[in-house]
Amino acid sequence: MTAPTFFNSHHSPIGAFASFTFGCKGALGGFGIELKGPANENLYIGVEESGRPGKYKALPFYDGAENERIAQEYDIEGLRDYQYAKCITPFDDKEVSRRLGAGIDEWKAGDLTFRVASAMGAVPDPESAPISELKDALVPAIYAELTIDNRLGANPRKAFFGYAGSDRHSNMRFWREDGIVGLGQGRNVAIATDDPTVYAGIGFQPEATLESRHPDNLNFMLGNVGLLVGIVPPGELKTFRFAIGFYRDGIVTTGIEASYLYTRWFKKVEEVVSFALTRHQDAFARAETLDAKLKADLSPERALMFGHALRSYFGATQCLELGDGKPLWLVNEGEYRMMNTFDLTVDQLFHELALNPWTVRNVLDMYAKRYTYEDRVKFPGGSETYPGGIAFTHDMGVANAFSEPGSSCYEQGGLRGVFSYMSCEELVNWALCACLYVSHTGDETWVEGHAKLFAAVLESLVNRDHPEPNKRNGVMGLDSSRCKNGSEITTYDSLDTSLGQARNNLYLAVKTWAAYALLQPIYEKLGQPALAALAGKQATLCAKTIVAAADDDGYLPAVLGEGIEARLIPAIEGLVYPYVAGRADLLAQDGPFGELRKTIERHFELVLRPGICLFPDGGWRLSSTSRNSWLSKIYLCQFVAEQIFGKAKDTRADKAHLGWLMDEDNVYFAWSDQMLAGKAHGSRYYPRGATAILWLVPPGKPPIQEVHDYIFGVAHRERVHTI
Amino acid sequence: MTAPTFFNSHHSPIGAFASFTFGCKGALGGFGIELKGPANENLYIGVEESGRPGKYKALPFYDGAENERIAQEYDIEGLRDYQYAKCITPFDDKEVSRRLGAGIDEWKAGDLTFRVASAMGAVPDPESAPISELKDALVPAIYAELTIDNRLGANPRKAFFGYAGSDRHSNMRFWREDGIVGLGQGRNVAIATDDPTVYAGIGFQPEATLESRHPDNLNFMLGNVGLLVGIVPPGELKTFRFAIGFYRDGIVTTGIEASYLYTRWFKKVEEVVSFALTRHQDAFARAETLDAKLKADLSPERALMFGHALRSYFGATQCLELGDGKPLWLVNEGEYRMMNTFDLTVDQLFHELALNPWTVRNVLDMYAKRYTYEDRVKFPGGSETYPGGIAFTHDMGVANAFSEPGSSCYEQGGLRGVFSYMSCEELVNWALCACLYVSHTGDETWVEGHAKLFAAVLESLVNRDHPEPNKRNGVMGLDSSRCKNGSEITTYDSLDTSLGQARNNLYLAVKTWAAYALLQPIYEKLGQPALAALAGKQATLCAKTIVAAADDDGYLPAVLGEGIEARLIPAIEGLVYPYVAGRADLLAQDGPFGELRKTIERHFELVLRPGICLFPDGGWRLSSTSRNSWLSKIYLCQFVAEQIFGKAKDTRADKAHLGWLMDEDNVYFAWSDQMLAGKAHGSRYYPRGATAILWLVPPGKPPIQEVHDYIFGVAHRERVHTI
Repeated sequence: MTAPTFFNSHHSPIGAFASFTFGCKGALGGFGIELKGPANENLYIGVEESGRPGKYKALPFYDGAENERIAQEYDIEGLRDYQYAKCITPFDDKEVSRRLGAGIDEWKAGDLTFRVASAMGAVPDPESAPISELKDALVPAIYAELTIDNRLGANPRKAFFGYAGSDRHSNMRFWREDGIVGLGQGRNVAIATDDPTVYAGIGFQPEATLESRHPDNLNFMLGNVGLLVGIVPPGELKTFRFAIGFYRDGIVTTGIEASYLYTRWFKKVEEVVSFALTRHQDAFARAETLDAKLKADLSPERALMFGHALRSYFGATQCLELGDGKPLWLVNEGEYRMMNTFDLTVDQLFHELALNPWTVRNVLDMYAKRYTYEDRVKFPGGSETYPGGIAFTHDMGVANAFSEPGSSCYEQGGLRGVFSYMSCEELVNWALCACLYVSHTGDETWVEGHAKLFAAVLESLVNRDHPEPNKRNGVMGLDSSRCKNGSEITTYDSLDTSLGQARNNLYLAVKTWAAYALLQPIYEKLGQPALAALAGKQATLCAKTIVAAADDDGYLPAVLGEGIEARLIPAIEGLVYPYVAGRADLLAQDGPFGELRKTIERHFELVLRPGICLFPDGGWRLSSTSRNSWLSKIYLCQFVAEQIFGKAKDTRADKAHLGWLMDEDNVYFAWSDQMLAGKAHGSRYYPRGATAILWLVPPGKPPIQEVHDYIFGVAHRERVHTI
Repeated sequence: MTAPTFFNSHHSPIGAFASFTFGCKGALGGFGIELKGPANENLYIGVEESGRPGKYKALPFYDGAENERIAQEYDIEGLRDYQYAKCITPFDDKEVSRRLGAGIDEWKAGDLTFRVASAMGAVPDPESAPISELKDALVPAIYAELTIDNRLGANPRKAFFGYAGSDRHSNMRFWREDGIVGLGQGRNVAIATDDPTVYAGIGFQPEATLESRHPDNLNFMLGNVGLLVGIVPPGELKTFRFAIGFYRDGIVTTGIEASYLYTRWFKKVEEVVSFALTRHQDAFARAETLDAKLKADLSPERALMFGHALRSYFGATQCLELGDGKPLWLVNEGEYRMMNTFDLTVDQLFHELALNPWTVRNVLDMYAKRYTYEDRVKFPGGSETYPGGIAFTHDMGVANAFSEPGSSCYEQGGLRGVFSYMSCEELVNWALCACLYVSHTGDETWVEGHAKLFAAVLESLVNRDHPEPNKRNGVMGLDSSRCKNGSEITTYDSLDTSLGQARNNLYLAVKTWAAYALLQPIYEKLGQPALAALAGKQATLCAKTIVAAADDDGYLPAVLGEGIEARLIPAIEGLVYPYVAGRADLLAQDGPFGELRKTIERHFELVLRPGICLFPDGGWRLSSTSRNSWLSKIYLCQFVAEQIFGKAKDTRADKAHLGWLMDEDNVYFAWSDQMLAGKAHGSRYYPRGATAILWLVPPGKPPIQEVHDYIFGVAHRERVHTI
């Protein structure tokens, strides 16, 4: 498909939980901090028409009716003489073109070009990196530039960039100081430039700044529309450079008290934009380099989805600092804003390992320290409980509110569907994240420091299989006692039983197999041969159980041994972990798990057919019994199919998936995950599409470390090997 | 009129720019900080029905549809088993009764009583008062209690108080610590109790907390409805006591950087509510005492309007601290949120002199330091300018954004109506506020420290009369050069020319006379006889000009000598200043200004008639040519009519004025000022009704200092005399 022009996309700094989201027509974008969706603000980006002084054209990111209404509240009897005739019209749709890369979003209309560059970079470890690198990576700013080609023009023409803020607490303001003119709302958002010819103004209408009757009138702070205005002389092509800054001061969370880490170096938003203006050229140069590489190496559909998803992820990241100065890394779950949802962490893992593996360690450590609990387990329908063990919570809280130790904001007892516990899945997720962190970084000190926890994880996993060792089959068979009379679910919480039920689930079984197989050498390294043997045995049992479940044609059931015959693509998901861990040997057709690999590959070939796991448009359908498909997981499964099974890229599917994102009902939410028959009904404005980074993994082993260099074109800073 | 039951009213701490506003049916109230209107949150206040366990009745302050929608965003395919059957119904309207005093808002429904007590107190001077008094006065909290009479009940019954927060940045949370259970949103709002039997819960529905299937499920932080729930045993009457706290940390303003002063002692909202719970009984006792006095001394209409207006004023107050530790007092202008609008300060003056005159000094000093400018002046239509002098801005900025030195957020050049300059009126306002501050406090040090400024004020006033001394008539004749080709306006900015034009305006002329007359002894005290003589001469000229303007019947024109024959009630406004300054001699019929006083009184008697300055409902119409009447100014003029002219209280008018506030289209905004034919179209949710405090001034002189003792029943702390 050809992407439409008008769809929202994030443009986000890293770690600031902030986004300049725009692209839809109307007041559907804006500058947001910690929001669950776009800020819904009027944006004004435009230029005076050539040959029509006093008439302006603007990109269509505003509706304008609201300002009209606000002014009337002051002028009760309508006696006004302060109004300005409207003189801005939006460009016609067909005059507007857009080129969206991962780094740069470029809009052209007439002789105007507006470009936004997101901060593209890894986040170095705050506990060891030099301050200069940290400031560069974490400055809560992005970059914009507005170019007007007036080379053929006979008159000076004004160009403008501004907005109408939506914050409930503060009005708009501007300032001029140290060679910088800035505009924004409250202490939280600012747009600034160091161009000495630019002036600022605030009014009820953009016209009040563009066509101000008196220079003294520019600072009409009752108005909610602020503009920065520059003048392009005739015969010149001129570019105005802007930094867009976000800022929140002080402690911002409850439960655990933490501040944004960037407040170490930046004391207010004015300082953010001043600093960012010194990084403007670098940021655009880096973004251009990346976009050129992506254009060369990915299909247009994948390049667009990759950038779209990556920036949605960055917009959800929050790099905080605890009271003791230690960093705390959070990814907020899009519109839901749950913090470090563990079943998203395990998907964002590939991105974070490639870019900043310390964040994986940081999240694992916080889970180990505060978001773990001990439970007992029981058989479905039974009342007797058996020893369980350690488990991890689904998340750490929601929207700046940390949940209590040992509790997520999400999990509830007594349920069988959405909001039930994910004890076993999050336990498996901890194991997989830990194993891949270790395989990627070789951080043996960390492994040794967590020896007891690794042992407890294995004990808990086998307890969830069967209380009697000789009845174990490698697959989860008991639910956590925290479920009360309910039962555990998987990350596919809103799907039907085929993917929603955790116990005996095929998807979870394959991930569990990967966890056992990758844990085994950890125990060997730790000098715990009994545990290593147990992990190895469980991996073998699990593989056997899965292989034995295939029917005569080779189809695997969604739920093993429970008569749920739905067909799943995510049967293949778990294979990604050994592969990324550099353990292709575990996936070899002639290796110890050759039968498992062949069974899963055969199953995949069977289900990826129309009427089973393909939608009519060619998009991938995760479960044959559900209309709800998840793009983040599709991206991941595409990687398994292509790199492990060697299948050709399904370009028709890519077009369909992009088509879902670009559906007119979905474009408001930028990148969304859950697609119910192609419509985003949940998991919108979402970070999990960071799995698309797997598309950039070059064939070979170990496969992930190249991605960092690919994206950033700089030396890979952290040692990588497998243990 | 009988007030309806359901109308919004503020319940506000002092100096926190915060309000628990509620009273309208539906989600039209809530907990707001720095907002321009109600927070629009669902409130849940109710009780389990007697004899129907599991069924609840609640006050009708919620609509509930929103929560339904939020839950569905997680459950894409509608597979939910987490929902609860609805079990709360609102009380019928006719079961609900309300008794609203100034201090206490009491609701009764069935055997439930819900009472809210606002903090009623003066604010002692932060530069000299003991910390304990300051904490008491400025703790950003109010108080509530919920009583259930279960003496006839056979079963234990649950009682609850909670809400669904509207903050965009944070989710709901609760905590239990140090014997307190608290509930709130983010770090900004909390409800807490020290009742050990109360528990808290969060969910998508209030039912999730009331009828929770498992105790572990209570902390479902994805939900946005939080409740505190207590249990009333059978046979008992039980009262649950709550503190409601507001909090904003760190620097909250721009232009000038300032924090809330209460952050000196309270580091977070948890500390606010802990402290407030220790003050709960005192707060209710004080509020009850005040309400009893008001009930005895004021008509029901005036008692209701007084409390309604006073709490709206408190909700707009903001006591800040500058970087150097000095206090900064702000009153935000209701829905407009302009800061310390000077033409409101001069009306709120009476309240502040009675309660905390240091705030008047604080505002005057900030105006003198930063919000003053020098202009030139010119005749209407002329292009030549003449010396002007010092003037003061209309305000200090808006909604936490301080304007630049010498500029308001409001005033614009080139206009003749709303948003034009108020240079002369604000100059007069500075003089009147300063004179009354001095007459009330006897603060001679302050006068001496401002000797130059007092001199400059007089020079500027006479320059605005006429450039040639022998052509002066005591009345403003020239507009500020800042108006460009426009002209100055008065505080009645949205009215027609009769009150809106400043030059030669009758309303402003009488205030100017008062300023000259009250300035004269200041210059004498300062040893500046020439200035004293000039002030005295100008007062005499001004009085003569006004007296001479009366027509044969005794009517005064709205604009002197410009053919604007509209009739004004505010002709009498300026008489309040000499009276409150203890200078009844200036108003004596046989005194030096006896003719002026008689002329104005005669005019008032003539215009206060149907068809001129009375609306058909008996309400006062400030200008005979406008439908727009302002309650704050009416209250003030009522005081002049009753105390200076000795007229009987116009009880029919009081009923009409209350009727305007209680119009179904107006009740959402609590107390509003501007009434266009009885409908609040502007100046809503407004502080200016603090002029109603004049109703409490006992006859006699000096007249204002008794009000403090009346309201607070404690010794008057500041020395009072006239100089």
